[in-house]
Amino acid sequence: MADYDLVVRGGQVASGFGTMRCDIGIRGGRIAALADRITDGAAVLDAGGLLVLPGGVDSHCHIEEPARGGYVGTGGDLAVTVNEESFRTASTSAFAGGTTSVVCFVPQWKGEGILPRVADYEQRAAKGMLDYSFHQIISDPTDEVLEREVPQIVAKGIRSLKVFLTYEPLHLSDEQFLKVLVTARRHGCLVTVHCENYAAIKWRTEMLLRAGMTAPKYHAWSRPIVVEREATHRAIALAELVDQPIQVFHVSCAEAAEEIARAQHRGLKVWGETCPQYLTLTAADMDRPGFEGAAYMCSPSPRTVEEQGRVWEMIRRGTLDIVSSDHCGFSMGGEAGKAVSGRDAPFRDIPNGIPGLAARLPILFSEGVSKGRISLEHFVRLTATNPARLMGLAPRKGVIAIGADADLALWDPKKRVTIANPLMQHAIDYTPYEGLEVTGWPVATIRRGEVVMRDGVVQAEPGTGQFLPRAPYDFI
Amino acid sequence: MADYDLVVRGGQVASGFGTMRCDIGIRGGRIAALADRITDGAAVLDAGGLLVLPGGVDSHCHIEEPARGGYVGTGGDLAVTVNEESFRTASTSAFAGGTTSVVCFVPQWKGEGILPRVADYEQRAAKGMLDYSFHQIISDPTDEVLEREVPQIVAKGIRSLKVFLTYEPLHLSDEQFLKVLVTARRHGCLVTVHCENYAAIKWRTEMLLRAGMTAPKYHAWSRPIVVEREATHRAIALAELVDQPIQVFHVSCAEAAEEIARAQHRGLKVWGETCPQYLTLTAADMDRPGFEGAAYMCSPSPRTVEEQGRVWEMIRRGTLDIVSSDHCGFSMGGEAGKAVSGRDAPFRDIPNGIPGLAARLPILFSEGVSKGRISLEHFVRLTATNPARLMGLAPRKGVIAIGADADLALWDPKKRVTIANPLMQHAIDYTPYEGLEVTGWPVATIRRGEVVMRDGVVQAEPGTGQFLPRAPYDFI
Amino acid sequence: MADYDLVVRGGQVASGFGTMRCDIGIRGGRIAALADRITDGAAVLDAGGLLVLPGGVDSHCHIEEPARGGYVGTGGDLAVTVNEESFRTASTSAFAGGTTSVVCFVPQWKGEGILPRVADYEQRAAKGMLDYSFHQIISDPTDEVLEREVPQIVAKGIRSLKVFLTYEPLHLSDEQFLKVLVTARRHGCLVTVHCENYAAIKWRTEMLLRAGMTAPKYHAWSRPIVVEREATHRAIALAELVDQPIQVFHVSCAEAAEEIARAQHRGLKVWGETCPQYLTLTAADMDRPGFEGAAYMCSPSPRTVEEQGRVWEMIRRGTLDIVSSDHCGFSMGGEAGKAVSGRDAPFRDIPNGIPGLAARLPILFSEGVSKGRISLEHFVRLTATNPARLMGLAPRKGVIAIGADADLALWDPKKRVTIANPLMQHAIDYTPYEGLEVTGWPVATIRRGEVVMRDGVVQAEPGTGQFLPRAPYDFI
Amino acid sequence: MADYDLVVRGGQVASGFGTMRCDIGIRGGRIAALADRITDGAAVLDAGGLLVLPGGVDSHCHIEEPARGGYVGTGGDLAVTVNEESFRTASTSAFAGGTTSVVCFVPQWKGEGILPRVADYEQRAAKGMLDYSFHQIISDPTDEVLEREVPQIVAKGIRSLKVFLTYEPLHLSDEQFLKVLVTARRHGCLVTVHCENYAAIKWRTEMLLRAGMTAPKYHAWSRPIVVEREATHRAIALAELVDQPIQVFHVSCAEAAEEIARAQHRGLKVWGETCPQYLTLTAADMDRPGFEGAAYMCSPSPRTVEEQGRVWEMIRRGTLDIVSSDHCGFSMGGEAGKAVSGRDAPFRDIPNGIPGLAARLPILFSEGVSKGRISLEHFVRLTATNPARLMGLAPRKGVIAIGADADLALWDPKKRVTIANPLMQHAIDYTPYEGLEVTGWPVATIRRGEVVMRDGVVQAEPGTGQFLPRAPYDFI
Ligand SMILES: [Zn+2]
Ligand SMILES: [Zn+2]
Ligand SMILES: [Zn+2]
Ligand SMILES: [Zn+2]
Ligand SMILES: [Zn+2]
Ligand SMILES: [Zn+2]
Ligand SMILES: [Zn+2]
Ligand SMILES: [Zn+2]
Repeated sequence: MADYDLVVRGGQVASGFGTMRCDIGIRGGRIAALADRITDGAAVLDAGGLLVLPGGVDSHCHIEEPARGGYVGTGGDLAVTVNEESFRTASTSAFAGGTTSVVCFVPQWKGEGILPRVADYEQRAAKGMLDYSFHQIISDPTDEVLEREVPQIVAKGIRSLKVFLTYEPLHLSDEQFLKVLVTARRHGCLVTVHCENYAAIKWRTEMLLRAGMTAPKYHAWSRPIVVEREATHRAIALAELVDQPIQVFHVSCAEAAEEIARAQHRGLKVWGETCPQYLTLTAADMDRPGFEGAAYMCSPSPRTVEEQGRVWEMIRRGTLDIVSSDHCGFSMGGEAGKAVSGRDAPFRDIPNGIPGLAARLPILFSEGVSKGRISLEHFVRLTATNPARLMGLAPRKGVIAIGADADLALWDPKKRVTIANPLMQHAIDYTPYEGLEVTGWPVATIRRGEVVMRDGVVQAEPGTGQFLPRAPYDFI
Repeated sequence: MADYDLVVRGGQVASGFGTMRCDIGIRGGRIAALADRITDGAAVLDAGGLLVLPGGVDSHCHIEEPARGGYVGTGGDLAVTVNEESFRTASTSAFAGGTTSVVCFVPQWKGEGILPRVADYEQRAAKGMLDYSFHQIISDPTDEVLEREVPQIVAKGIRSLKVFLTYEPLHLSDEQFLKVLVTARRHGCLVTVHCENYAAIKWRTEMLLRAGMTAPKYHAWSRPIVVEREATHRAIALAELVDQPIQVFHVSCAEAAEEIARAQHRGLKVWGETCPQYLTLTAADMDRPGFEGAAYMCSPSPRTVEEQGRVWEMIRRGTLDIVSSDHCGFSMGGEAGKAVSGRDAPFRDIPNGIPGLAARLPILFSEGVSKGRISLEHFVRLTATNPARLMGLAPRKGVIAIGADADLALWDPKKRVTIANPLMQHAIDYTPYEGLEVTGWPVATIRRGEVVMRDGVVQAEPGTGQFLPRAPYDFI
Repeated sequence: MADYDLVVRGGQVASGFGTMRCDIGIRGGRIAALADRITDGAAVLDAGGLLVLPGGVDSHCHIEEPARGGYVGTGGDLAVTVNEESFRTASTSAFAGGTTSVVCFVPQWKGEGILPRVADYEQRAAKGMLDYSFHQIISDPTDEVLEREVPQIVAKGIRSLKVFLTYEPLHLSDEQFLKVLVTARRHGCLVTVHCENYAAIKWRTEMLLRAGMTAPKYHAWSRPIVVEREATHRAIALAELVDQPIQVFHVSCAEAAEEIARAQHRGLKVWGETCPQYLTLTAADMDRPGFEGAAYMCSPSPRTVEEQGRVWEMIRRGTLDIVSSDHCGFSMGGEAGKAVSGRDAPFRDIPNGIPGLAARLPILFSEGVSKGRISLEHFVRLTATNPARLMGLAPRKGVIAIGADADLALWDPKKRVTIANPLMQHAIDYTPYEGLEVTGWPVATIRRGEVVMRDGVVQAEPGTGQFLPRAPYDFI
Repeated sequence: MADYDLVVRGGQVASGFGTMRCDIGIRGGRIAALADRITDGAAVLDAGGLLVLPGGVDSHCHIEEPARGGYVGTGGDLAVTVNEESFRTASTSAFAGGTTSVVCFVPQWKGEGILPRVADYEQRAAKGMLDYSFHQIISDPTDEVLEREVPQIVAKGIRSLKVFLTYEPLHLSDEQFLKVLVTARRHGCLVTVHCENYAAIKWRTEMLLRAGMTAPKYHAWSRPIVVEREATHRAIALAELVDQPIQVFHVSCAEAAEEIARAQHRGLKVWGETCPQYLTLTAADMDRPGFEGAAYMCSPSPRTVEEQGRVWEMIRRGTLDIVSSDHCGFSMGGEAGKAVSGRDAPFRDIPNGIPGLAARLPILFSEGVSKGRISLEHFVRLTATNPARLMGLAPRKGVIAIGADADLALWDPKKRVTIANPLMQHAIDYTPYEGLEVTGWPVATIRRGEVVMRDGVVQAEPGTGQFLPRAPYDFI
């Protein structure tokens, strides 16, 4: 009997510390050996000329997230709806883009507890092929939820609470946010935060709508940089008061990142995430005729080309240490996606969010590594090692190491691809990156030792994705 | 007939740009001449060996402020009460300390408009001897108040709106604060802000009380520096969004001042005030046996000796450009002052605030000028010129210049005095500065050409104080 | 007999603290009275509609500076030459532009002592009409000079030592600079410093010349911002080591100013000067055909329009607190000025420096006050009060105060003028500001009570300028 | 035949990205396999319960460095002498402390070329057991040296030029330093810099000696923080001008580190090193009776306990990314070491430097990892991965990776040891860390697959150390 189920042969294996040319021996879904030459594999995958990277860990994506009262970012009164992306389609998309694990979101519906939503979501997630873990959104932090329910989900390994400081049906007051921070501290959870000032955006939005400025492009006008900086500073200050670590989600600008840097310099455990949209899109993308701008609408808003440069700088400095997708897709056609309130709806009533699960790694590789902005190892840290560690998934995920899950992305660093929606393999009918040319592309994806994507063809059994119970957050 | 009603002879006249030895000729309550020698005065006051300074302008003091539902800082349900200091006693105290004008506060009672309170307050203020102007507190920013009433008080020359970001019955939400900022911008008012985070203090207070930590010293524990820094940053960010100038009241620490400095460096019109208590008292003063610590309780809390040094540094750098008293006195004895909720009341139920109207100038002079921390001119700017300019009272107040009101403080820079409550000449039965030795003391005060204090004896007719309508804020 | 020799009537009198409408009574060359109405003057000058400012104090100008071995900035071996501007022409130019006092430079010739140069320079200066004071350049800090001669010039009231950290025949090594700092500290002198790195400029210059890049525009290439920042930081560090106050001359960029700001924040006595050329000229001005670019050549080099904005910001913040001219004129025509080494000379051999004595105040007023960048009082502080105080000339100069010299500039704030060389009334055959339109212009200049300029016509007796012995530097 | 020469079994293998439990298979001196279980080793070393770390890379140590004209730091005129530590004793000491490679220094003697010194040094180094590489000191940057000789040593793989900005016989002027920077840029060398201001130290030293302040403790007085900050800023500025990467050696204080951080934020390739002495010793250590203080004398001087905290902070932030020993030992007894100028010699004449080759890793592990200041992986990066990468020795050295040299330190993280000189196994008769208690100790050292230290006993054949030709510096 062969010692190894699968041998990945002859690749350039990259991780957070450097690269080495070696074979990888996989046994029982785990990496069992790294060696100059491994001969006794039941199967062999030739990685000659390729990079072998840890499978991507996307620690911020919205998948099959059921909403009551309308989508995030709309004020509507719709019946219960479900985010278009299912765990099956999301798995296909993730594998197509080299990602093998995600952390997605269990909603909380106002006036209800979280346990029913966790139960529902566990069932949904179990139908996919991706490995998954959950952030628990807290939108109604009652004593019941915080004192009785949170300990139960922590026991399951759900180790992060997500709060919104804006969005009509979700935002928490400072008082509520403090309660969540205190609860998280007691149970060793990370708190992840969407930082924008609720009242400021509401005021600006009302002013704009009153003035008839309703087109998608005014979305950016409604939430300038200062509202993100304010909420970032406030989130940090309250976390500092409680002595609770937080991660600031989707930092779009240098001013907010600077607040994170200041906190880090004071010795606080504050981490910052950014996303490909803040490195490649701008507010001007929303300024297209008619409804078309809606395709680029997400929060915080994309900024300017200059601001993209500043965000790169903050990545380079290490202030922003995770790049996730914030995948949150709504189709442009049909009646249930971006156009749910009609194609003439004011920007306020258009669902926020863009898809990015498949595009995240190729875009960051191309814009980062191929263009010389970051090293290959920095890329691996940003997209796999750091999210795995912060989310308490290491050393099982995010690294190529003995004992780790054999999650691998085989990458052709020279392959040039023009992004087009079919390549994304998601449920959404468009990608905001359509037409973007990238250098570097994943040619095979391995999940726990199983080749689940090869040359763009995803082959994986629904229901094989595993729930990942998480350890407490770790320092990066 | 003599050319001048009064000549102040032979003093060293100091103002914001330097000092000069000259006589001052006063006619009709105004300064009519500055000259090497003025001979034709109906009366002469010898200022030989003395400094002649502009009368102090105290742009932040609480005088005879009627409250419904209890004092600021208490959560109680008392009937309508009045701040102990009346305009008569406040005038005596101000003159004793070299101050000749104040800006004090018209309250707003929740659920009511501001006009009745203005009318009531005008009547009260008219009974004193001090010249006065008002900040209008906004605690219930209804459309009625903001759209109909504010323009009326602006027309009277009440040119600043005061908001609280903490305190149970007063604090505004971000949404309300934005409305006030927008209103102020429309009418050319300054907005002055008490910056501490409401929810954070509430949470800490509840924790402390639940743990039986009720003594006065826990007041400081309930509101650490981070809650002041947070609210300062937020106030600045929202003002930045609206493009509205603000003054941050009573900055107690370098972290909050640093937020102001950063805003100023971004080119924003943000000013910072501090008070003598943050230069001379510490949190340890509240840690005295029994009720005694209540005498030093004010908000923000005094900090540490090291923090005092940092506040001096921020004065030196120009970040903090006004030193006012935040005079807000409550007697320690009796049943209507500090002990209104009993002498065993938890810190939450003890009225906040300390008296400082008379002590402000001597303390700042002694700690600042006599100890070499600031120049004499810097002292004059901090205590008279800058507040007059920012409050729109210049050039009538705050300077020694032709045409300005003849408000003068004759100062003996060598006189050594030990502060004791009788010297304060206020209605309060104590001073938190009892026993402090100072070098430099006002030996005469002149208000609009009239000698209203001489060697500590105040002599002035009740009802002679004048209302000062204000121009829009001016840059300093 | 009239009480006053001259009354300036009805002007808006401006100083560092604000403005007031009053008459000024002058007696014996000094300001004897400021009053609402002064009637008994032997003569009256109507200032109705005009601003009355303190006469400008230009604390950095090169006048009739004899050089041996060629002009500053050339490496040549010429015989002794004299800077074209004589004290007579400089006086005319200064009065034309509203300036009434200067601090100019006594050279030191290598290998010689300073006393003979002082004696020579005193004779030259005595022939002008301007009041004057001296910086003593130290280019050869022998023990003889520092220990025996410096005390003698300090006794005369020459209270500042000027050192160059670059320029072939002048620059001091760190070791020499330290000696000067120690000497200055012992005798209470200020040290003023030209901050550029000698070796770096030399290296760049040689590279450029070797590559045939000899045109005037390469002057800017030879001394980029980093060489100014380096020398500024070094000068500050060595002054910090010795605990000696310094003034950094002609700051052209934000990076150098930032070093000064950091030093000030550490509590050091470090002041920063800038000049009109860094607010209005750019390196591109040197990029003109043939020799023409030489007209704009000075050191440090003018930078970019963006950098001008940053320098304004540093003025606004108070980091740069004096604006002087660094007047150092060389005519473009003839054989003794810019073209001394020929009109094809490489940039290294073209004398550095541009004229600005007359243009300084109008340019700063127009670009600063008229365009709303700074207040009128800030203008007065930058151009008169601050230089007078730092140079130890206050309270005699730089203020409008009882007892001060009656040096006044009557300013028409609305007058629009296009700068042209004849208006400059200097000895130089061009002005680099030719064609610049300004709003605001001096219509009369008074020096010690005497009207020396009226509507552009200068009338003053040669030899009436006075030497100004200086007190130790004062804090601003 | 067994597949592996040696298997290290059952350790916790640590590297820059995390740790994993695995066996290590070594073949031909290189790491050939990392696997969950490796059975076919010719020999097995049990690492159960131990950490397995990359062998330490000490990128800054002085070994057997011949000096002419006296030791570094003395002004004397001695005949040629040799640093006491030979490559044999240094190898023993390094292995005892878990270090397997060093970068040490080839001197240049003034007036001579570098090639003879390289030849001599190659012979010396070849006698040791450690792997080694060289920095080439440039103390006399003639054209001959820079243009003809440097290319020859670069061709050999000597890829860094070391310059001193202080020390009597070694310091370069700015002009010379620029030449070295330009040369380094042309040939792809790193420049490493000793940053202290020569003139300032000289001035302070002369002042102190003249005042009779000659004891060892005055060494610290002679070189305060400001002289280090100044030279650091200057080195960075000149490197910025030339666009040449530099490493700042032995940063002792936050002010110098802050200059490095600012440069990094500007995007410059500037790296900072610190050493254990700046984390554990203070200036007070030199204040011991008689000659004893000399034992702690090195440059820059150790500072204070507070400064140690700030240096840790700068390590934590990533500004300082390498911790080397700056091993430079002189015995306290005898006549050739610290006492070479006599035991009453003034501090200026006592050789600078302290031994630290063996102590570096245990001290940093104990003070850093065991005390919770840094993570285990950060320790590995600071002491092995980062120096290997910056020095162009990766991926051969500094990592545990397939293909890398099998240089390993087996570490008992719980072992408590009191440092004593015999444990250091060097040629020097003392250690400045005598008596320091550490937690964590290397129990075995493997160099290229050979166990060269076991339980403190070093066993290795002299002459087996290999020269390491270096690639260009790499980003960290
Ligand atoms: Zn979000
Ligand atoms: Zn999201
Ligand atoms: Zn307040
Ligand atoms: Zn108040
Ligand atoms: Zn100069
Ligand atoms: Zn000059
Ligand atoms: Zn060194
Ligand atoms: Zn060294």
